[in-house]
Amino acid sequence: MFSKVLIANRGEIAVRIIRACRELNIATVAVYSKPDKPGLHVLMADEAVCIGDAPANHSYLNISNIIAAAKNTGAEAIHPGYGFLAENAYFAELCTTNNIKFIGPKSQVINLMGDKVKARELVTAVGVPLVPGSAGAVQSLAEAIKIADDIGYPVMIKASAGGGGKGMRLAHSKAALKEALDMAKLEAQAAFGNDEVYIEKYIEEPRHVEIQILGDEYGNIIHLGERDCSLQRRNQKLLEESPSTLVDEELRERMGAAAIKAAAAANYYNAGTIEFLVDKDKNFYFIEMNTRVQVEHPVTEMVTGIDIVKEQIKIAAGERLNIKQEDVRLNGWAMECRINAEDPDHDFRPSPVMIGEYLPPGGPGVRVDSGVYSGYTITPYYDSMIAKVIVWGRDRNEAIVRMKRALLEFKATGAITTVPFHLKVLDNAFFQKGEVYTNFIQRRMTE
Amino acid sequence: MFSKVLIANRGEIAVRIIRACRELNIATVAVYSKPDKPGLHVLMADEAVCIGDAPANHSYLNISNIIAAAKNTGAEAIHPGYGFLAENAYFAELCTTNNIKFIGPKSQVINLMGDKVKARELVTAVGVPLVPGSAGAVQSLAEAIKIADDIGYPVMIKASAGGGGKGMRLAHSKAALKEALDMAKLEAQAAFGNDEVYIEKYIEEPRHVEIQILGDEYGNIIHLGERDCSLQRRNQKLLEESPSTLVDEELRERMGAAAIKAAAAANYYNAGTIEFLVDKDKNFYFIEMNTRVQVEHPVTEMVTGIDIVKEQIKIAAGERLNIKQEDVRLNGWAMECRINAEDPDHDFRPSPVMIGEYLPPGGPGVRVDSGVYSGYTITPYYDSMIAKVIVWGRDRNEAIVRMKRALLEFKATGAITTVPFHLKVLDNAFFQKGEVYTNFIQRRMTE
Repeated sequence: MFSKVLIANRGEIAVRIIRACRELNIATVAVYSKPDKPGLHVLMADEAVCIGDAPANHSYLNISNIIAAAKNTGAEAIHPGYGFLAENAYFAELCTTNNIKFIGPKSQVINLMGDKVKARELVTAVGVPLVPGSAGAVQSLAEAIKIADDIGYPVMIKASAGGGGKGMRLAHSKAALKEALDMAKLEAQAAFGNDEVYIEKYIEEPRHVEIQILGDEYGNIIHLGERDCSLQRRNQKLLEESPSTLVDEELRERMGAAAIKAAAAANYYNAGTIEFLVDKDKNFYFIEMNTRVQVEHPVTEMVTGIDIVKEQIKIAAGERLNIKQEDVRLNGWAMECRINAEDPDHDFRPSPVMIGEYLPPGGPGVRVDSGVYSGYTITPYYDSMIAKVIVWGRDRNEAIVRMKRALLEFKATGAITTVPFHLKVLDNAFFQKGEVYTNFIQRRMTE
Repeated sequence: MFSKVLIANRGEIAVRIIRACRELNIATVAVYSKPDKPGLHVLMADEAVCIGDAPANHSYLNISNIIAAAKNTGAEAIHPGYGFLAENAYFAELCTTNNIKFIGPKSQVINLMGDKVKARELVTAVGVPLVPGSAGAVQSLAEAIKIADDIGYPVMIKASAGGGGKGMRLAHSKAALKEALDMAKLEAQAAFGNDEVYIEKYIEEPRHVEIQILGDEYGNIIHLGERDCSLQRRNQKLLEESPSTLVDEELRERMGAAAIKAAAAANYYNAGTIEFLVDKDKNFYFIEMNTRVQVEHPVTEMVTGIDIVKEQIKIAAGERLNIKQEDVRLNGWAMECRINAEDPDHDFRPSPVMIGEYLPPGGPGVRVDSGVYSGYTITPYYDSMIAKVIVWGRDRNEAIVRMKRALLEFKATGAITTVPFHLKVLDNAFFQKGEVYTNFIQRRMTE
């Protein structure tokens, strides 16, 4: 096992990694930018090194300063957390060159999975499904009709150069296809100066369901079940849960097997997440793989009892996985809310302020991961997360009432937070019935 | 279900009960003594009523003021917590007279179990074992020899009027019995003016193992496994865990069945705890029954996932137990440390002070139950508990390293706490091997 690990991150995830190191009896080195000197991760680590000023490219993205900090402090490994350099293959490579263990997969694998086209080719080759559609741009109405007949209606016509909903048209039938195609092309031309469009099966009320995997360096890979992260606002996850209200034991096994197949095809090791879209009929489609620990990993920890960050470190130290697939059981229900210093009444505008009194919720079934404390000032340089509140209940209903109870207890005086918004979600009748999908906020949360 | 509950307690257990009420959507009334006005339970409850001054007999033990507070606020039930009026049969009776539901067993049952002689008669009648010994005082050496032969050596001679170790003599054999009897009688006469002595089987390295039970008002009783509370200092529990390193599945079943038999014999309902001494050969002996929630209930909650306080309230509201014995499984390992504002280097002298910055530990597997916050002043009028830190791990080793990690994080500036003492226990090689017994601190923790 390592005797010293450097944590190339800040905030709650740096604190989370320090906790894992402590339990493994590993000394920790924090790094920090100048405005982060009062950070909780700096106060908690055994050593701390300033690696430059804000913004991040001068410090948390400053690869040479971070490598130098590791060498100067004698750290044998670096945990990158999430964000910043976590999926930077060059950084992972440079760690290896400098004889520092990167706590994550091989740099080639980060590269491979970071290339969305190559990643899709790889998983398709081993039989993991993608959202059905045209291989590339469609050239004619006849071709469009043939493809749509193949994959089934409704279909979505999308601009190849598209984004932000522009150049997108839905067709529910063959009769509607011609107009949809024409309109999409017109809009694409107008918006992007390029009228190329492609066709994909339209997934109504799609779920974002992801599978957590753990693999060691000897080819053993297990999955830890799913997380439902459908509740999003502008592609930002707001609330995550495990298990998913849509996923039954049979679907879990199929998705778990697909995730393991995809990871095995990439010779993947360490912790990783395979993201899928799932439709109402329980068909699932690969989106991408995240080659790092996720913000929402605690919900999996609470239902499986497995400490994912400790497993990451043990795997990086060359240990074999000592958990077998059949030992993984999802026990009860876990839910996470990301509490940000943002104003939900003003378009989630960040509100970086000094927190007067900070008192996290406690008691049964409540876990808090945070990097703040009473008197801490949230800086404007980084994301505005104050804390992740994670709860466990015997069933989903207990998790919901417990989350409400915990959020009502949450105290961070002076800060405007997203707590009122989360409370509204928890009170929403559709949410309570488990009817969530990626466009839930637009469809169900606008008064 | 009740719409409003009054909590006749203070500190962490009052906060704990407020949390349970919140999750059940029940409004809460806190009561407080004058010096407790800044208490967290007062701040958290929906309403708060001052019931008099310190000390407790003017407020938390002032039955008429508490009943009046319940009537004035329209509370339909009272949760007594532990300590204070929790095992006061008269108070329970008066609640009933006033048409207020007492959240606990019937007052007659509190009375019965509070009378140690009657309680022992009751459980013996249904076959629950007591520590073997003479029925009363022994009259002669011949009788002593006969009893000792029956129950087996070693035996302890104890003064009937005894206490504090005076008039106690151990005899390992028949040859040693005469002298032990004479010495005990002499010492008893000198210490208490009464030379009556009785004989009990001497239990070497006894464990204090207790069984948590839940019973509804329809005669259904289940047990939630054991807690090992052997680690004590002057009969004060310091660290509790579940499961016990001594208890295997077979012993758990036998002890659980005995606990249920004892509870059933008393027509017991609500939560209760049957305390046993257990010897090295896994024989167990009834000590007493506690007819209330215990300080250490969270370790059972963490391994079973069952919210004992919510169950108490649901039972009192007339609900049927919806947990079956076969659904109760002990998952992983939980441990609790009671962090007191006491100085372990000066004979655990209380150190009531203002807490400057309070930051409880967080992250995976850590639960904190507390009634303090940054800037809170611990009063000298009540026990000096700052917080209960409870951890969960996949196995006992993970629970131990996690507890160490959590205690090292625990921040309550200005206060002298028992944290350093707990850290010493956690580092003790005998403790780590699971070799604990009620005299562990004297035998293994004195340098």
